[in-house]
Amino acid sequence: VLILFTGFHVTPKIHLICPESCLLIVVGVIIGLLLFYTGFHSVEHLTPDVFFLYMLPPIILDAGYFMPNRLFFDNMSSILIYAVLGTVWNALTIGFSLWGVGLTGLYGVELPLLDTLLFSSIVSAVDPVAVLAVFEEIQVNDVLYILVFGESLLNDAVTVVLYHMFEGYAEMGQENMIPIDYVAGVASFFVAALGGALIGILWGVLAAFISRFSHHVRIIEPLFVFVLAYLAYLNAELFHLSGIVALVFCGISMKNYVEENISYKSHVTVKYTMKMLASSSETIIFLFLGVSTVNDNHEWNTWFVVMTIFFCTIYRSIGVVIQTWVLNRFRLHKIHKVEQFIMAYGGLRGAVAFALVLVISDKIIPTKAMMVTAVIAVVYFTVFIQGMTIGPLVKILNVSTSQKTKLSMNERLHTRIMDYLMAGIEDISGHLMGNYHLRDKFKYYNNKYIRPFLTRDHHVREPKIFETHSKLNLADAMNLVQKNGSAIPVMGKDMNISLSTFFQTYTQTNIP
Amino acid sequence: VLILFTGFHVTPKIHLICPESCLLIVVGVIIGLLLFYTGFHSVEHLTPDVFFLYMLPPIILDAGYFMPNRLFFDNMSSILIYAVLGTVWNALTIGFSLWGVGLTGLYGVELPLLDTLLFSSIVSAVDPVAVLAVFEEIQVNDVLYILVFGESLLNDAVTVVLYHMFEGYAEMGQENMIPIDYVAGVASFFVAALGGALIGILWGVLAAFISRFSHHVRIIEPLFVFVLAYLAYLNAELFHLSGIVALVFCGISMKNYVEENISYKSHVTVKYTMKMLASSSETIIFLFLGVSTVNDNHEWNTWFVVMTIFFCTIYRSIGVVIQTWVLNRFRLHKIHKVEQFIMAYGGLRGAVAFALVLVISDKIIPTKAMMVTAVIAVVYFTVFIQGMTIGPLVKILNVSTSQKTKLSMNERLHTRIMDYLMAGIEDISGHLMGNYHLRDKFKYYNNKYIRPFLTRDHHVREPKIFETHSKLNLADAMNLVQKNGSAIPVMGKDMNISLSTFFQTYTQTNIP
Repeated sequence: VLILFTGFHVTPKIHLICPESCLLIVVGVIIGLLLFYTGFHSVEHLTPDVFFLYMLPPIILDAGYFMPNRLFFDNMSSILIYAVLGTVWNALTIGFSLWGVGLTGLYGVELPLLDTLLFSSIVSAVDPVAVLAVFEEIQVNDVLYILVFGESLLNDAVTVVLYHMFEGYAEMGQENMIPIDYVAGVASFFVAALGGALIGILWGVLAAFISRFSHHVRIIEPLFVFVLAYLAYLNAELFHLSGIVALVFCGISMKNYVEENISYKSHVTVKYTMKMLASSSETIIFLFLGVSTVNDNHEWNTWFVVMTIFFCTIYRSIGVVIQTWVLNRFRLHKIHKVEQFIMAYGGLRGAVAFALVLVISDKIIPTKAMMVTAVIAVVYFTVFIQGMTIGPLVKILNVSTSQKTKLSMNERLHTRIMDYLMAGIEDISGHLMGNYHLRDKFKYYNNKYIRPFLTRDHHVREPKIFETHSKLNLADAMNLVQKNGSAIPVMGKDMNISLSTFFQTYTQTNIP
Repeated sequence: VLILFTGFHVTPKIHLICPESCLLIVVGVIIGLLLFYTGFHSVEHLTPDVFFLYMLPPIILDAGYFMPNRLFFDNMSSILIYAVLGTVWNALTIGFSLWGVGLTGLYGVELPLLDTLLFSSIVSAVDPVAVLAVFEEIQVNDVLYILVFGESLLNDAVTVVLYHMFEGYAEMGQENMIPIDYVAGVASFFVAALGGALIGILWGVLAAFISRFSHHVRIIEPLFVFVLAYLAYLNAELFHLSGIVALVFCGISMKNYVEENISYKSHVTVKYTMKMLASSSETIIFLFLGVSTVNDNHEWNTWFVVMTIFFCTIYRSIGVVIQTWVLNRFRLHKIHKVEQFIMAYGGLRGAVAFALVLVISDKIIPTKAMMVTAVIAVVYFTVFIQGMTIGPLVKILNVSTSQKTKLSMNERLHTRIMDYLMAGIEDISGHLMGNYHLRDKFKYYNNKYIRPFLTRDHHVREPKIFETHSKLNLADAMNLVQKNGSAIPVMGKDMNISLSTFFQTYTQTNIP
């Protein structure tokens, strides 16, 4: 796989037409076919346990740890609306519609309402792995990116809750349900999401606190980050809360403090090890998705597949348009028509749905095989058709793309000043729950109580600004030396040549 | 464990008296006692599979990858003598002596010769993990370090071969053996060691070659190093060759080329991830060694344990003295009496022996339980008594310690010039197999054929010298900027204060 991966990038043409995720699935299918026709049925496919315990956490931790905090919290309310209301909307409408169509006898199989609702709750959630894989390549603007990606992360809580709820209902049968079950279902939303976030933050704070004392053992600093984040994930999953939400919040809450405490080399190690783990997990997931496609347990039901894809596409579009219309009345940065289209179109489904559908017991849902096939069809449709066309569409529709530049000192200072100014204005206008006011309050308490507790060198009040400053300083230094080349020769120029000739002479005289 | 580890380093006094490995074993024993008396017998102990598949490879890869190549190859012949002859000597003398004492009926158990030889082959090999843990703390001079550590790495091949050989013999019974079996035993030495080395080099070259093309996907560069090295290990173990030797040679052969190809950040990631994995493996090994001690399968046989420890100590000392006497006749850097003592005394046994003794089938060796207890006793004796006293002894005996400094430009250039000079002298004096001549030949072919094939930018003839040069340049740049402080203010000085006051004013006016 590593060799393949390098190959993809060396051949530039394939890479431009087709996202990596598609290529990996294709390779996976080829491997799957080879295994299937040579009779190696016994090769273990992607099991849900392996997926949720080993493959998913690195990707989510990477997402949470490198989350652009400011952007995320600025758009938090919109993201929550899309993630919670949007997913519930999709699950209910798709579930009821599939059930309604089923009543006409089109599928040729009997499908109870609870079964279609369980299926729709799996298939309605946008997948963080697929979204990340595609959106990192097309580079839309930051706000659009954070809306789709934030939704895909946080809707996990909703999916997990809906999934466990409908599974429980399907197990006990519709006739045995009492009203309290419905109330419990709604309540468990908040428990799963808030509980997950709380557990994540607790572990994140613990990691930050430990990193305060780790400067004697630099070598294990990066380990803290990984081990404690993973414990947060396991801890949340243990209580049937959302592990993904826990991991995201663990990453967000530990990051700033940990980065202040650990050494520069530990920072590089954390960053690149995380990226490395995440990208290899992603590779393996898509590859296994391809391999797992090839087996003889499929039950292809054309109408069921067509209807699922149709309803998924339609209801997501309707949902996004309605929610955005409401949100735009409150948002400063309005979401345009084109951006709404990309949001609806970018709702890719992926491996999370596939792993969840595999966990269903076929004792509870007799039509499991049909559902697995339908989920794979939806994943393939979204990853291949939507994933491959979204790039060109972004260009044709002229969606504003991101400018990935590092903030200059000037921008950092002025953003900070604007923050204080806005907080002051919100203060005067009595708008006490405004974004800027809340951020200002957080900064105040953070500097007064939290940072002194969690970091070792907490006398610097604005670490971000000093970080930018010292980076600029280093760049200046390098420039200065390069310009004053006469005093100190710089590698790769004349020094290079003279040394080369020097050694060549030696080598040539020595060896006949 | 992470918290404990940080704790050790924060409390400086414990750390000075007692090496980490001892502390970890003690903690392990405490955990083991807790588990034992609360009835959690079901907790899985360190199984040989887990040990050899997951715990050992990171430590050995770390050792091989960061092996000081020059030192290692300069002392290669001495290391091989100690590793091969020394281990065979120890295994045979300890085995025969234990068997001889057994004939007097001192143990109260019947011990056939092949059983004691199997046992002695396990217990005679110096353990790389234990040696690394202790010798990294006491910091003796480089030559002494590489002799003991190199021996501990390469004697694995011998141990594996002896172990499989005596196990096979014990299984078929002494009476059924034919002369060809003895010959096969001797031949398998060379197969295991050379085969392991060959497999390691092949994978190492492949890793170097792939890294040549990986600059398009920087993020997976570190992964190549880990995955391909691990494949080398598995590949060697698959054929019953020495995985440790394969891993060491894989690390040695890939390092220089990979480091030239990958980016600086990938380099930092490889380095620190490797160190991090190795140190966590080491921690877990010692901890589990402690936990595994506490169980009810022990069979304590005082005389057997005492005799084992006695013979281990005596024969190692005799072996080192005799071999060194021979070697000193050929070595330029003679090994002094004091260094010989430290070499004999530093022959620590550890987790490899423990894992190997657990693998023995008690159908073949009925006295397995007694042997397990004896191995644990030897490990504890060497790690605690010898490991804790070797530090003070090194100071009392005034053993020359290492000066860990980075080579300056001057040293690099002069070492290189001396190399060419010596190679020339060896050439003239007709000493065609001399160290310098061989190195020069290797450098010549390396620059002409191997490097152009394995590296991307191979026009620089002396990469090490340029590395030193560019590091010095950067340091110069930083100094220059710090001295010209008036033009560009440097972080942490006046800039710091003025910015702080600036923001403090803002903060104070904003929040009541």
